[in-house]
Amino acid sequence: MKKFSIAIHGGAGAIPKTVPEKDKLIYLNALDGILRYGHDLLASGRAALDTVELVVNEFENSPLFNAGKGAVFNSEGKNELDAAVMDGRDRSCGAVTCVTRIKNPVSLARIVMENSSHILLCGKGAEEFAKEHGIKFVRNSYFFTQKRYDQWLKLKERNTTALDHSSDLTGSAKGTVGCVAKDRFGNIAAATSTGGMTNKNYGRIGDTPLIGAGTFADNATCAVSCTGTGEEFIRTVAAYEIHALMKYAKLSLDRACEKFVREILKPDTGGLIAVDSEGNTSCPYNSKGMYRGSADSDGLFEVKIWE
Amino acid sequence: MKKFSIAIHGGAGAIPKTVPEKDKLIYLNALDGILRYGHDLLASGRAALDTVELVVNEFENSPLFNAGKGAVFNSEGKNELDAAVMDGRDRSCGAVTCVTRIKNPVSLARIVMENSSHILLCGKGAEEFAKEHGIKFVRNSYFFTQKRYDQWLKLKERNTTALDHSSDLTGSAKGTVGCVAKDRFGNIAAATSTGGMTNKNYGRIGDTPLIGAGTFADNATCAVSCTGTGEEFIRTVAAYEIHALMKYAKLSLDRACEKFVREILKPDTGGLIAVDSEGNTSCPYNSKGMYRGSADSDGLFEVKIWE
Repeated sequence: MKKFSIAIHGGAGAIPKTVPEKDKLIYLNALDGILRYGHDLLASGRAALDTVELVVNEFENSPLFNAGKGAVFNSEGKNELDAAVMDGRDRSCGAVTCVTRIKNPVSLARIVMENSSHILLCGKGAEEFAKEHGIKFVRNSYFFTQKRYDQWLKLKERNTTALDHSSDLTGSAKGTVGCVAKDRFGNIAAATSTGGMTNKNYGRIGDTPLIGAGTFADNATCAVSCTGTGEEFIRTVAAYEIHALMKYAKLSLDRACEKFVREILKPDTGGLIAVDSEGNTSCPYNSKGMYRGSADSDGLFEVKIWE
Repeated sequence: MKKFSIAIHGGAGAIPKTVPEKDKLIYLNALDGILRYGHDLLASGRAALDTVELVVNEFENSPLFNAGKGAVFNSEGKNELDAAVMDGRDRSCGAVTCVTRIKNPVSLARIVMENSSHILLCGKGAEEFAKEHGIKFVRNSYFFTQKRYDQWLKLKERNTTALDHSSDLTGSAKGTVGCVAKDRFGNIAAATSTGGMTNKNYGRIGDTPLIGAGTFADNATCAVSCTGTGEEFIRTVAAYEIHALMKYAKLSLDRACEKFVREILKPDTGGLIAVDSEGNTSCPYNSKGMYRGSADSDGLFEVKIWE
């Protein structure tokens, strides 16, 4: 059996080092638990594609992270969710955007991938598709958390938008979530899920559900999931740029990721997690911090917020 | 003053060579008129960005093409439009998806680019943004054409979807529209606009509004606009792949485009138009035909449907 490896992120941004020790521990423990879960799935022989979906489900179900339960509020005071998943074996992919009543958007993205000739479905249409495929619906109020609501009320007063993590109003709950994995069979996959930006204009689509921007996977090179200011990842076609740097400029995963985050991505924008088909992982960022973790079958197992 | 050049497309697909001579002439004349208009804008010193927008407006206003007036119908019998524009100078870009009451979606995309911190706005949200910026609204019935409606009724009966051009039900009116241009100042830009696929599931988003998939521009390499089965252009991150082949694999525009369309893109999928910063143009396709044209300040001026 081949080496397996996994990387996860729970968002990047201006995470102040001054957050109370108690809050740090809550997040590090959550990351540790989710990373352990993903590690064990891969160890037991689960496919990379299953693993990234199930791991992102854990993030979506946690109120600590900006995806699923705990998502931020848009300018209308609603939670609007985006997600994508991609299989490195054949570049199969699926994504949903602007859904408001789907408990686990990344699982709907996978069903779009496997049961639709389309890749990206939006809003009401995506939810009609979900209904036809027996997906679990929740009321929009399921996504409610007091902390996110209070953040929104304050930003709304100021009439501005914020990545949940770049606001000084929150010290702990952060950004997009994602997972990349390489399984024992040599396949890689990527998944990303998000509630977007607090107080975003209704209908704004970020990089998360856009294949090549926030999410990409190809066994030939790498699987990537991004987090941060979505527009910068769209403009740079970020996830695919890592692929191109490996495929055509012949850089290693680590050099490609470092080059992108240090030289191409606008400073203070965010970060990404990536894995290649050898099982190497890379988790660079150019924001103050990034909730992240990586593990593999050689004994690596670490979760971090700062350097 | 430097060389200028322009390429346009009005869709690609299984365009039968057996279409009546009269219909061929209608399309060739329309392409000729639009290409002439774009050529003259560039000759008079207009910027590439202005030119691609104005040229795509002409396509949108023509009932012959699947964009704006003349767009195909979705599964609910409505016209749902997508568009994107990108400026090669600094990768500024804007896009809209699932709009139903905007006469010229590409112009709304440009206003998103210039007046919003976001890149991609969707549906009702995009239309709220449009209202705030004084954009011209039309009733959804403005987009109605009898031919498209009849196509839709027939596909609906069969419960299937079709690119407007790959259906045997139409011999003449075809796909996405787009324009790429290089101006006298050395800048390049790309714009794309579409009504999508006939009888598409409500909410399906294709490649057109996705930066890097259907639309991309960077002065360092090329400006690209794609047409065909959108999902294949998303999966291959098509427009950005041309950029990557030029930037990192050091291919010429023509070799990059040919390699992509012959070796990477699934057969019978569609095509693209591209221009580089030297003013070279390339318009390859792997479907039966593609409505297209290219012109430059050196005297090139041609419109074609087949080889």
